[in-house]
Amino acid sequence: MTKACQIGEDALVERLVALMPMAACPRSRPGDDCALIERDEREPWLVKTDSLVEGVHYFAGESGLRVGWKAVARVVSDFAASGGSPFGFLVSIALSAETPVEWLEDVYRGMARCMAEFGGFLAGGETVSLPKGAPMVLTVMGMGYVKHGAAVFRHGGQAGDFLYVTGSLGGSIQGKHLDFRPRVGESSWLVENGYPTAMMDLSDGLAKDLPRLSAASDCGYCIDPDSIPCTEGCSFEQALTDGEDYELLFAVRPCDADSLESGWKREFPDLLLSRIGALVAKDKGESLRGGWDHFDSGHPSGMG
Amino acid sequence: MTKACQIGEDALVERLVALMPMAACPRSRPGDDCALIERDEREPWLVKTDSLVEGVHYFAGESGLRVGWKAVARVVSDFAASGGSPFGFLVSIALSAETPVEWLEDVYRGMARCMAEFGGFLAGGETVSLPKGAPMVLTVMGMGYVKHGAAVFRHGGQAGDFLYVTGSLGGSIQGKHLDFRPRVGESSWLVENGYPTAMMDLSDGLAKDLPRLSAASDCGYCIDPDSIPCTEGCSFEQALTDGEDYELLFAVRPCDADSLESGWKREFPDLLLSRIGALVAKDKGESLRGGWDHFDSGHPSGMG
Repeated sequence: MTKACQIGEDALVERLVALMPMAACPRSRPGDDCALIERDEREPWLVKTDSLVEGVHYFAGESGLRVGWKAVARVVSDFAASGGSPFGFLVSIALSAETPVEWLEDVYRGMARCMAEFGGFLAGGETVSLPKGAPMVLTVMGMGYVKHGAAVFRHGGQAGDFLYVTGSLGGSIQGKHLDFRPRVGESSWLVENGYPTAMMDLSDGLAKDLPRLSAASDCGYCIDPDSIPCTEGCSFEQALTDGEDYELLFAVRPCDADSLESGWKREFPDLLLSRIGALVAKDKGESLRGGWDHFDSGHPSGMG
Repeated sequence: MTKACQIGEDALVERLVALMPMAACPRSRPGDDCALIERDEREPWLVKTDSLVEGVHYFAGESGLRVGWKAVARVVSDFAASGGSPFGFLVSIALSAETPVEWLEDVYRGMARCMAEFGGFLAGGETVSLPKGAPMVLTVMGMGYVKHGAAVFRHGGQAGDFLYVTGSLGGSIQGKHLDFRPRVGESSWLVENGYPTAMMDLSDGLAKDLPRLSAASDCGYCIDPDSIPCTEGCSFEQALTDGEDYELLFAVRPCDADSLESGWKREFPDLLLSRIGALVAKDKGESLRGGWDHFDSGHPSGMG
């Protein structure tokens, strides 16, 4: 028998997905931040499911308000990364019967706050009991429409495209991972102006996520180490591998770069936008290592 | 602080849902098997999320094929109870890094089998690691369209309506809870003929679920104990309280009863249909107790 940790997250997903019936020609692919569902000539759906686990994404004793905010904000961030926004949510919560109701109410208040701020309502959900002592699992599913042709994925980038990240990277565990603001307005402006050829949000660290975007776009990548926007007090390695930044990583055609950069300064003067490198031909470029792997206990990090 | 087990599942859900932003006039309500999402003049969506937990819905050592089948079949059963069928699924799986990959592949094969049989494809999902020893949580989200006015809910029944159940009740733990066939064809026939005024699937036992359907329909209920279709070898109490029957419970106008009963025999000669009682005025009728409550350790059972 092979343990999940022996093959790592991406290989595990690949093996499992290979067994399943898939839509004939899905434009979204396993790994994309949201799934695009095109059933007929109507506007397609964007959907996303995401789980928050006690002891992994937050620790016992954390404020329920922050846990609830994070659970919904992670899904909103995935919609932003896809060029959309959710209008409805389903919430599945698996918890021990010992869990304090008052703390749970705070979790729901935190989810409600995030929905109030970024839009959307609770459409349904369920509660299920866990054996005593088991960590809570809070699964949020978001759904929304997206205009034909407006959704953005990890694939679509081309060799030569410049790579950008919003905000600063690293050190999220100091608190940002619970309080971050999904880049909804920024994504909306980017997509309306047709800038991103490929996009994702950074949840597992640039070192893990950039190779994923590049591979999905059938490209390699080069980055300029001096251009990486490290959070104050964070090392270059932390910026690459800490994870949970929830910033946008996207590729842009070189001919759009000037217009993007000047427009960004006008629209979002308070949020850093950094050109960190470029996509290159598949067999060229560098190879980053590290970042968060859910099924890898070693967590090697650094640039290879 | 109040523990979840001190107030029980229905009260917990009520307190949590009260904190959330809801759609203005949702036709589906908390507790319905699926949520109906009506965003504009287009065909509405039906959506449902449901979690399977190790140690609650199956035990360690169980065949992965059966676990996977059950995870998807529960969602398909909720769609059947709502008069619809899903065309796409999202799967969130939270598991220990020690989990054998070969067993997980069987879980996905089981899910694939159920999708192949009842329709639908995998649209997306995610995997997340749990701390060592934590029970696996497998969350399946189903989505589908439904024609305007075709969806059926727990509310809608009226005093005087006859109550029916499909199949036989009780003893599901002997194996049926892992191998059951969602009543998709039966539901489709019922809804096309306009029979059910209210409907749900029986997951927590008739003693728990019938009071829910009646309350949602603002009614009471009476049942005829001799009419309850007990699974062979099961007592009346088991039939009421074992749970996980995944049969349909529905209400029908008395004027439709003859046509329903003769049509059923013609269409589904091999599946029992039992008229078990009727909805009555809210303050009349009986009061069943027992059935499965996720947050009640006592599990009282029997008829009150």
